[in-house]
Order: sequence, then structure tokens, then C-alpha cells
Amino acid sequence: MSKPKVDWSKISIELHRKYRGKIEIIPKVPITELRDFAIWYTPGVAGPSREIFNKGKDLSFEYTLRWNYAAVISDGTRVLGLGNIGPEAGLPVMEGKALLFKYLGGVDAIPIVINARDPDKFIEVVKILEPSFGAINLEDIESPKCFYILDRLREELDIPVWHDDQQGTALVVLAGLINACKVVGKDLRKARITLVGLGAANYSVLRYLGAYGVDLGNVVVVERPEVGILHRDHPRLQEFKDRAPHWFDAAMKTNRECISGGIPEALKGADILIAASRPGPGVIKKEWIKLMADDAIVFALANPVPEILPDEAKEAGARIVATGRSDFPNQINNSLGFPAVFRGVLTVQAKKMTDSMFIAAAYALARYAERKGIHEEYIIPTMEETEAFVEEAIAVAEKAMEEGVARRKLSRSELEQEIRELIYRPRKIMEVMLREGLIEKHM
Amino acid sequence: MSKPKVDWSKISIELHRKYRGKIEIIPKVPITELRDFAIWYTPGVAGPSREIFNKGKDLSFEYTLRWNYAAVISDGTRVLGLGNIGPEAGLPVMEGKALLFKYLGGVDAIPIVINARDPDKFIEVVKILEPSFGAINLEDIESPKCFYILDRLREELDIPVWHDDQQGTALVVLAGLINACKVVGKDLRKARITLVGLGAANYSVLRYLGAYGVDLGNVVVVERPEVGILHRDHPRLQEFKDRAPHWFDAAMKTNRECISGGIPEALKGADILIAASRPGPGVIKKEWIKLMADDAIVFALANPVPEILPDEAKEAGARIVATGRSDFPNQINNSLGFPAVFRGVLTVQAKKMTDSMFIAAAYALARYAERKGIHEEYIIPTMEETEAFVEEAIAVAEKAMEEGVARRKLSRSELEQEIRELIYRPRKIMEVMLREGLIEKHM
Repeated sequence: MSKPKVDWSKISIELHRKYRGKIEIIPKVPITELRDFAIWYTPGVAGPSREIFNKGKDLSFEYTLRWNYAAVISDGTRVLGLGNIGPEAGLPVMEGKALLFKYLGGVDAIPIVINARDPDKFIEVVKILEPSFGAINLEDIESPKCFYILDRLREELDIPVWHDDQQGTALVVLAGLINACKVVGKDLRKARITLVGLGAANYSVLRYLGAYGVDLGNVVVVERPEVGILHRDHPRLQEFKDRAPHWFDAAMKTNRECISGGIPEALKGADILIAASRPGPGVIKKEWIKLMADDAIVFALANPVPEILPDEAKEAGARIVATGRSDFPNQINNSLGFPAVFRGVLTVQAKKMTDSMFIAAAYALARYAERKGIHEEYIIPTMEETEAFVEEAIAVAEKAMEEGVARRKLSRSELEQEIRELIYRPRKIMEVMLREGLIEKHM
Repeated sequence: MSKPKVDWSKISIELHRKYRGKIEIIPKVPITELRDFAIWYTPGVAGPSREIFNKGKDLSFEYTLRWNYAAVISDGTRVLGLGNIGPEAGLPVMEGKALLFKYLGGVDAIPIVINARDPDKFIEVVKILEPSFGAINLEDIESPKCFYILDRLREELDIPVWHDDQQGTALVVLAGLINACKVVGKDLRKARITLVGLGAANYSVLRYLGAYGVDLGNVVVVERPEVGILHRDHPRLQEFKDRAPHWFDAAMKTNRECISGGIPEALKGADILIAASRPGPGVIKKEWIKLMADDAIVFALANPVPEILPDEAKEAGARIVATGRSDFPNQINNSLGFPAVFRGVLTVQAKKMTDSMFIAAAYALARYAERKGIHEEYIIPTMEETEAFVEEAIAVAEKAMEEGVARRKLSRSELEQEIRELIYRPRKIMEVMLREGLIEKHM
């Protein structure tokens, strides 16, 4: 069954040239005569400004867009699979992300690309920008500096900070694993898990597997051939400490048995493989999958082509296969994570995104799919299942209140109403804009 | 005739609390199914990103919102009449400005308030943010550091930078003066002009009077009582050099006759008074206006109450009076400037906002009013005269092309069509959003 191959890149260039921007800013308040600006600008606006000054900065969340205002910030050092192409070339991606934030999560996100490659400068700039925003989404920053940047900003800012290339993927992976283990009848917390590749995504998977309660001694991490399996007796351990501290950290935490070698050794007897390394096919070989335990779970996440194609993995004995692709079942798609996570934290004006909130989001996603009926080819909701976003956002918001990091308290029904309205609003606007010819269809 | 006094501040607080944000972000591209994200995000978006990387950064203006994307940036050190209230308290004002940018100029402006009071840090942050934007609007930054910040950013950035508290006021003042001089039959270039107050607004007025061709030797500047009239033999000249370099600069450039004293001495025989000092009434006394030449022109710009009320000034012999107030004739309103100036520079992707572009904008505004018929009570268009914005934006764009600072070349008719469409679009959107109940009316 061969479909004509769509050249998305070419279509995308044409349409980017045609539309010249994917988002725009519009008034959210009624303006029926210019006199209304006396309310929205001078002299009236002195009122809200004076109150924020007198009564405290947190009032800026009540009187402005800040409560729903997020920045998608990148230095353009690791854009998609394109590498370090710089901030200007990263802008189409960040703007696309802002579009997704609004369309899927009702979040007013803006793209910001910055000329600041030094990690400390990056951190400084985000701290300087903090008073404008309700949350920060970091994007497409090269590793390992992205780990340092995220850790420090999470510590130092009073608004949630999220690095989607780390946490976004990890969140959806965790949700998928929870259900995959249910389907095959294994206990995720005790599973033998092999990670292939330890970049932004898998290092974060490791971190949140730990937060979920997985015994990390049972996890084995394999990096590129010249590095192999990480373990605490690795001959290059001291070198990693300085040059790739995330490898060092993983070497110390995982692999209780000090297995050494490469991917085959790492996969022997493994229940779960999570590969987030480089585009396949053939990066993971069929015969290696055969080394895994019965009812193996394989997540092959490289884009555009998974490390091993689902058919091959299944032929080699994998029972459940997930990839990053929308044309195979079980898509591990970041878009299932960030829009709802931000919807949740922004709605309650959270100060932090805690690990418990993260786990709550993963459970909510998993639960949604479970209720609909999970099986080998459906372990995670699809992007079409909008109600999954609503539930996930509510779970994040409720956990934030429970953890004491929410500036705002809402009842379950208030939360649900507000979140649902915000998530569906952009679709209503789209429908009206299309109908009224204010957005032109391209075909 | 006494109207009930409206408490704008109170109404504004209530409505800011109700609407929680004055702008929102919406898609500008059609989304009819989630599959469309393959164009607007991955995998398609790699196409435009790769092209920008390969063919040059300027392509980011063609493939993203950047060509129409402006930042309204403030450190909150001098917000309205409220002083240094900080970034969070400044946010309602910056968001209001962004609203005006869109509604009046079709510009996608976003509010950014920053934790960076040091002028060099402020400059560094804006430079780091440059790759995101097509133009920068500085706002509500304390003087004298605002002069240094603007000068350096104008020099160092490859996109236009505008400080509205300086240039916005100066632009509308200059347009008003051009027509006021026509009405009274005087030559602005040779007029005896007195400036009262030399803050952000009047220092910029001075600068652009010079650029317009006014003989600055005929200008006399008066500052607060302990300083008095500035001149090159002022006893505190050396002190000014360090602590208030704009005073020093004015002292060296103006007042050929080395007049000393206070406001009365400065006004003796003056054709024009431009006061931008502190709220009146009574800051400028009637008897001082009587000292001016016949057919005197008085711009009393303090808000909310002018330095002298129009009636008083007229009784004392002024022929034309302009203020910052919308309830008197001849409102000197920054909103006549920045939306159209940005519309012009953004439409042609200008690299700079040159003095000639500034003068062209002032002429366009003046010409619009002249064509409608200028007189003592109508020297400048009102905010309602939308076509004045269109003409002003075209004038700025054409001058940018002429000066060789435009990245994009358009014919007069292309310019006109594009600019008119962008300026009227937000009104159409507003009408539709109100009709469809997507924006709720507040009364």
C-alpha cells in the first residue's frame, strides 16, 4: 500500500511565504468607540497599575494577560533535526509551537528567539523577562546545556518553566508506558528498561521514571558506540563528569549489575526499550529485539524514521510498539503534553511545575485512554481526543493546588468550566474567522 | 457646563479584573484538521527554517510573523505619572499600548516588562531579543537613561527602535507646529521658541526641531526653578555634563543670546511655547503668556491638567493652544504617531527609523489636516481620522525606501493597499468578535 509521498517541506515553504506569520494578536476587550481607550489605556490604566504597585506584584496576574501569557524561548541551537541554525531560522518553529499552544491549550504563547548561546546569559535573560509571563517554555536548546538551564530556571523563577524537548517527550512516554505495562501485565516500577540514546528526551525520561518510582538500578542506558552502556565503572566516567554531566549522572544511578557493552547487551532480557537516538531504520536491529524478554515493549522515537519500524519490531517479538509518527499506532506526540500542562499551570497561576504535577499529568493521559479501552495499538490518546487535554489540565491544576504552589484556588467545577472554555475557544474563533473570510483557506 | 466627572481609574480596575487581559493571540492560518500542523509545525516547518538558515536571516521576515511583530518594552521606571513602579505594575500600560498598536496600526505588538534597570543591561537584553522582532518600541523608561538607551539601540540594531515618550510626542508636536505656523503666518524655522521642561518629550522636540531645520539659536529652554534657563554660560554647566547630559547638550545648542532667568524671561517675545513639565493649572501664568509675541502659539502638554488651561492662555493673547487632552481642541496625542510610524516601517521591513522618515511622518499628518482645512482649533488630525494614519504610514514607508533602509520595495499602490488593509483589519475582526459573542460587551 503505497501512498503518494507528500513533500511537507515544500508545501510548508509555499504556505509560510503566503501567510507571512502563523499567529496574530487581536483585542480581547470590546472597543466600540475610541473613547474606550480611556479605560484600556490612559488615563484609566493608571488604576490597575497603581493597584499592582500598592498591593503586590501577583496582582499582575489578575489585571493583565500575564495569567495566560507564555513565552516559547529558543536560542536556535538545536532546532528539530537541523541542529544549530540560529535564532532567526528557529523562528518558524517557535511560532508554530505558539500556534499549537493556542489551538490545543488555549494558551497565549509568543515566540521569542534570542541571541544568547552562553547558558548563563540565557538564564539571565529569561530571569529578566520573568515579570511579563505566567510560564516559560524552553525549546530547541542544545544538550547538555539545556539540562543546566532548565534546572536553574526551575529553581530560580517564580513561574513554571518547562523544556519541551526534555519534559514534553518524557511525559507522553511515561503515560504510554503506564498503559503498555497494563496491557502486557507487567509492573513498570520493577521492569528491566533499556534506554538507547541519552539526549534531552531520554535523560528526562530517566528522571521521571525515577520520580514515578521505577527502580533505576534496573535501567540500562546505552549511548553512541564509542561510549556504549553507562555504568559506574565506565573507563571514561571522570571525563563525562565535566563534559557530559548527564551521562555521569545516569552512570551513577542506573545499571545496578554494571552491565557493559552495546545495544545487544543492554537489551538482553529487557522488558522495555525506549530509543531516542538517531533516525532509522536499522539503528535497532531485529535480532536485538529478539534478545528482549517476552511481551517486550518498544518505543522507537526518532524522527522522521524510527530506530526500528513497527513491523520489524513486531516480527522480532515486540508486543507493543510506539513511535513518534502519526501514521503508525501509538504516537508519542509532545502535543499531548505541553498544551494541557500549560493550560493547567496557568489556570491556577502556579509558581512551579513539580514532579507530582508531572506524574499527575501522565496518569490523567493514561487514564483517559484506559477508560476508552487500551490494547496493543492504543496505549495513549491521540491529538484528536480533546477531552483528554481537558482532563490532563485539570489534573495538573488540582495537583498544583494540593502541592501549595498555586496562586489561585478553584473548585473542581470552576476549573473544569474555565479549562474547557479556554481549550475550545480557539476552535470557535477559527470557525468564525474562516466563515467570515478573515482567514483565507489555502486550498 | 459641568459634566459628571468620570472615574476612569475605578472603571478601568473593574474592567481589567473582568477581562483579565486586553489582547490575545489567535491563529492567522487556516486549521481545518489537525493534520494541518504537518505544514505549520513538524515535519513541514523544517522547510522554512532550513531556507532561512541557508539563504540568510532576512528571510525570517518573509516566513514568520517577524515582519509585523513589535515589542513594547519597559523596565517600569517611569510609568505614566506614577514614576518607578516596577515592571509588573507597568504591564497593564504596556498591554494597553500593544492593544493600540494593533487597533490603530494593524501591528502585532506584544508587551514585555523587564527586570533590568541598568541601562547597559537594558540595551543588552534588547539586542539579545532582536532576532524575534521587526521593530522595538521602548516605553516608560526614566530619563536621562532613556536618551542613552535609545541612541545606542538606534545605532546598534538592524531594526527600527522608537521611544514613544520621546519621539511619539515630538512627532505630533512637530506636525502641530507646522500647521499652527501656517495658520498664524509665521515661519517655524525662524521662530523664537521656548521649551518649558526638558524631559524625554521636550528633549526629543528639540532634536527634531533641529532636524526640521529650525534655528536652535532661537530656542530657549527653561528647566525647574533651581536650574532656570539653560545656556552655555550656566554656572552649573559642568555638573550637567555628567548628571544630566541632555541639559548640557541643550545648553550648548540653544539660546544664542544667552538669556538667563526663569519662565518669564524665556517667554519674552517668544512666538511659540512648548511646555512639557508638570501638571497644572498655574504652572504657566497668564501674565507670562502676555509677554509673548503677537499670535502666540502655546502647547501645554502636561497630563492630566495642562500647565495652563486653554481659556486662560487665550485670554492672555495666545492665538492657538494645544494640549494633551481629548476634551479640548488640538490634542497632541501620541496615538497619532506610533501606530502609523510602525505600520510604515514594518510594511517595508525597514532597518532604521531615520530623521527624514520622522519628518516625512510629521509632514503627512500636517498635510492631512491642512487638506481638510486648518484653523485655530484644528491644526492636527484627531484619532478618529483613520485615513490620516494610512497616509502617514505610506509617507514613512516611501521615505524608508528612498533612504535605502527598506528591505522590501513596493509600489505606491501596493503600499497603499497593504497598509490600508492592515489598518482596517482589526476593526473588522472586532466587529465579528462582538457580533459572534466571542468578545463580550461590558455595558
